[in-house]
Amino acid sequence: MSQPISALGEFGLVRHLTGDIRPRHPSTVRGIGDDAAILRFGNATLAVTTDTMAEGIHFDLSYTPMQHLGYKAAVLAFSDLYAMNAVPRQLMVSVAVSAKFSVESMELLYQGLKHACDYYEADLVGGDTSPSITGLYISVTAVGEAVPERITYRNTAQKGDLICVSGDLGAAYMGLQVLEREKKLFKEDAGIRPQLEGYEYVIGKYLRPEARKDIFRFLSSAGLTPTAMIDISDGLSSDLLQICCASKTGCEIHCHKIPIAEPTVRTAGEFYMEPLIAALNGGDDYELLFTLPVNDYDKLIGHPEISIIGYVTAPEEGCCLVPEHGDKIELKGMGTGEQVDTD
Amino acid sequence: MSQPISALGEFGLVRHLTGDIRPRHPSTVRGIGDDAAILRFGNATLAVTTDTMAEGIHFDLSYTPMQHLGYKAAVLAFSDLYAMNAVPRQLMVSVAVSAKFSVESMELLYQGLKHACDYYEADLVGGDTSPSITGLYISVTAVGEAVPERITYRNTAQKGDLICVSGDLGAAYMGLQVLEREKKLFKEDAGIRPQLEGYEYVIGKYLRPEARKDIFRFLSSAGLTPTAMIDISDGLSSDLLQICCASKTGCEIHCHKIPIAEPTVRTAGEFYMEPLIAALNGGDDYELLFTLPVNDYDKLIGHPEISIIGYVTAPEEGCCLVPEHGDKIELKGMGTGEQVDTD
Repeated sequence: MSQPISALGEFGLVRHLTGDIRPRHPSTVRGIGDDAAILRFGNATLAVTTDTMAEGIHFDLSYTPMQHLGYKAAVLAFSDLYAMNAVPRQLMVSVAVSAKFSVESMELLYQGLKHACDYYEADLVGGDTSPSITGLYISVTAVGEAVPERITYRNTAQKGDLICVSGDLGAAYMGLQVLEREKKLFKEDAGIRPQLEGYEYVIGKYLRPEARKDIFRFLSSAGLTPTAMIDISDGLSSDLLQICCASKTGCEIHCHKIPIAEPTVRTAGEFYMEPLIAALNGGDDYELLFTLPVNDYDKLIGHPEISIIGYVTAPEEGCCLVPEHGDKIELKGMGTGEQVDTD
Repeated sequence: MSQPISALGEFGLVRHLTGDIRPRHPSTVRGIGDDAAILRFGNATLAVTTDTMAEGIHFDLSYTPMQHLGYKAAVLAFSDLYAMNAVPRQLMVSVAVSAKFSVESMELLYQGLKHACDYYEADLVGGDTSPSITGLYISVTAVGEAVPERITYRNTAQKGDLICVSGDLGAAYMGLQVLEREKKLFKEDAGIRPQLEGYEYVIGKYLRPEARKDIFRFLSSAGLTPTAMIDISDGLSSDLLQICCASKTGCEIHCHKIPIAEPTVRTAGEFYMEPLIAALNGGDDYELLFTLPVNDYDKLIGHPEISIIGYVTAPEEGCCLVPEHGDKIELKGMGTGEQVDTD
């Protein structure tokens, strides 16, 4: 009678387990169901997010340098804060580590964490290390500060809004494919040296992503407050569906507007893959996906790091992808429909 | 040339990795080195703590019901907040879980988490679940609210202060011994039914501990602010040494004043163990250990759940245990000397 977790999926499971929770404290402004929880104490509004990365699931140490891993763990948490339009202030780390790891490897992990804290101007205020039977688990908690009227939830997109995305998409996914290919070749013949030249961009996007501090700052300085925002961790499709589903809207995005960098296109070609698929479903991009009223169009235009890829529609119009030629396609993400994601 | 983590120990490693960190934000009041970080945003003062429990290290699922595990994970975090004299407000949970677990087992885990949140009046505001290759890892982050002038650090004990402890000690450790014994017997002969009758108290203390909400409230209502406080997770010796080491003091505690419950004494006897050893080094008690000025003596006396076990001395007098008969003994904890603990 026991049901495997895979039957519900990750989103479905969280929804199933937490759907009945009703916050009781006035300090809880927003609980489960967005990139971060929003708390309000006195005159302070905070965003808090927590996340775990597990060896063998979220990272492969055969090609992930420990510094990069530490940096990435922090970036993932900071990205969640920016997605709420909050600015990182503190980071706490809890590491469970098996005996196979050395003090030196932990030093490298912490170097990465500290570099990220330096760059994103956050204080590392908690560092707990405990043993694990097998493997490495990194849990990070980030605390950010927000201006109440500028907080961006994912359930407040409005029909007619522009859909915008920062940077370019699909690169991290292609970087992962290259790393996996070279790992496989190396396993078959240990004499082979990994060929990573020419893949610096896509590999860099996968191993050492950045959170979009610059976009957060631009939005603030331009006086722009997105109606909804999320960071792209699971892929454009999945994360856009999160916004539309939570906001009870439809959407229409245009294939040729989706930003894909040249190295991503080139690498996808080598793998006989459609670059658009990597952009839509690849994930691990940590770009910001947000919606803005049409009236803000003038303030966006010409920004080299922001692409307008479509607009929010009425719910009955569904979520559609418009190819350059041909008919509209229904947008699909992993576990579409009623979804809850908490990071 | 690579150094195993065991060479530094858990405390030594954290100190080694984080010793050079200097907070930059005014919102960071206290970073690494206490039961929780203390943050100040606007007129709000918060305590935030994060902790990971790993299967096979911190819990054994062959005798730990999932509800109890969830409850205990939350209690550990709340206990850290009480140790700062802060009151729990929010809890976030991040679980990494392998495919061997069912939806039902996750429901039970969350039942325990929710029960703890109900009892300790905290909101569950984050619930993230991700896969793990092997085993179960539970990371909890708790946010608490504090009154700035009532925060209790561990480095501010004063010479002459009374040393107080809540409840009784060593029970959880003896409960663990009973569970491990019955597991061993069951492994040798699966026909044997575990004999747990008569051990309810010690097993309950291990499997389903409580954080001392009542002591937190008593201190507040009696107008008592400890000069230093810590929760006993590693054992009285180790945690008292944390206070003395951080406060640069010595201490003298009296063996016959250390509270040990009758079932603990009885169970220790069966295992040919000195109950005092369980109380000093057992750990997992989650009782509060705190220091108070001698002038507060009258307010404490007669409280059925608080024992005065000794007093704080000058650093040159060292940390001593005074037996009922015979000479003083030097107090030893795990990894004494320069220690840093962050949970």
